[in-house]
Amino acid sequence: MKRPLILVTNDDGISSLGIRNLIRIMNDFGNVVVVAPDGPQSAMGHAITIDSTLRCDEIVIDKGPQKEFACSGTPVDCVKLAINQLLDIKPDLCVSGINHGSNSSINVIYSGTMSAAVEGALNGIPSIGFSLLDYAQDADFSQAEDYIRKVTRKVLDQGMEKGICLNVNIPKVIENKPIKGIKICRQANANWEEEFEKRMDPKGRTYYWLTGKFVNYDKGTDSDEWALENHYVSIVPVQFDITAYSYLSTLSEKFSNYE
Amino acid sequence: MKRPLILVTNDDGISSLGIRNLIRIMNDFGNVVVVAPDGPQSAMGHAITIDSTLRCDEIVIDKGPQKEFACSGTPVDCVKLAINQLLDIKPDLCVSGINHGSNSSINVIYSGTMSAAVEGALNGIPSIGFSLLDYAQDADFSQAEDYIRKVTRKVLDQGMEKGICLNVNIPKVIENKPIKGIKICRQANANWEEEFEKRMDPKGRTYYWLTGKFVNYDKGTDSDEWALENHYVSIVPVQFDITAYSYLSTLSEKFSNYE
Repeated sequence: MKRPLILVTNDDGISSLGIRNLIRIMNDFGNVVVVAPDGPQSAMGHAITIDSTLRCDEIVIDKGPQKEFACSGTPVDCVKLAINQLLDIKPDLCVSGINHGSNSSINVIYSGTMSAAVEGALNGIPSIGFSLLDYAQDADFSQAEDYIRKVTRKVLDQGMEKGICLNVNIPKVIENKPIKGIKICRQANANWEEEFEKRMDPKGRTYYWLTGKFVNYDKGTDSDEWALENHYVSIVPVQFDITAYSYLSTLSEKFSNYE
Repeated sequence: MKRPLILVTNDDGISSLGIRNLIRIMNDFGNVVVVAPDGPQSAMGHAITIDSTLRCDEIVIDKGPQKEFACSGTPVDCVKLAINQLLDIKPDLCVSGINHGSNSSINVIYSGTMSAAVEGALNGIPSIGFSLLDYAQDADFSQAEDYIRKVTRKVLDQGMEKGICLNVNIPKVIENKPIKGIKICRQANANWEEEFEKRMDPKGRTYYWLTGKFVNYDKGTDSDEWALENHYVSIVPVQFDITAYSYLSTLSEKFSNYE
């Protein structure tokens, strides 16, 4: 059987521990090509580079069989470059991560990791974003690995509905608290209560740092936040059609006199 | 009656013709505060500045009654800064644009203009993104103005469903082809067929420029692309919950043995 071609990217940068683990795991599943940012590109959402040049050079980071390219752009740039420039054939799978930190609930729309997976889906490639709820640079990916293998196997064997990708979040490793299993979920209704810290630079000019507190307003037991709080792996199917279909008819009535 | 507080932003930058027109129009509807990028931030999607400092300074560009702030960050940064730092009360309306160029169909997920409107909706503010299908820096906003006034009046009078914002795209002005009216639409199924132009810099190192061709795969007459091609203003209600609800049960079956 032909080994699948797997595109690997992330938003923490090509040398981060999360993607190094993901590359190692993916080498067992297929022929791996890595196209990832040359430095951190967190919270870049679906940003792309349109008014500036893009750099993308082949590099060698470890002795694995994968081919690797470091790119000056965003995670979405990496996926576009891979598909349209670097690869001769369309990948069978696009995986992004393992992100250092959660991409559950509202974080999905800010996340470069997930935007890369959405871009894969946009191009008809089965795509998965993996995130571990541990921001530490030396995070423990050991428990995550088993679930990453299960989800990858499933998607490679069964494919993915067109236009949909998976947002997989994995609880942090806590002693005596093993992961209980997988829950298929919806995106929780949660948000950040943000504050800006105002500071003065050495020249007396004001600048700001974004800080914030995550608040979950969702009481449901079918959300990704519920699953993660209860130590399950959460999987949310994500789509790029963001039309609010449920509101179309109400809106049509409101504007009926202008049609 | 108390005049509404209106937050104005965009992604083309605070001095672009689109936002200057939008500010002028909004001054007729309420008290306007502008918080917009100090330079172009197109295609920034929902990117935010988390690992770097943000600058935001009050400036005066014209003699209008509005208060204006130029910000070093992305459109979403601008909305966050306005709500959490610069304004004492929550705005009654957040408008973004007028974008120089279309944000219809798949462009919505790359658009900084629309991400600012989504961020407004996330914070419970009725929000609208306006775009004109004309990339020219000296684009003619005259026909757009009438529709911008109609949509703004409607949203100020009737409010907006929580969590939803409007993506309003306006056809380019073409002689002898007046706009026919407004259509409430869904996001068309369209995408970019992209190519990268590979070049060599003066030092002999490779770089890339993103180029692409827009392709509409959608045959429906209820999409935003159809409306715009037929010279209607398109309005798509947009939500930030990107769960693919229609796929939840299929996915649950696939993973039932892991739950």
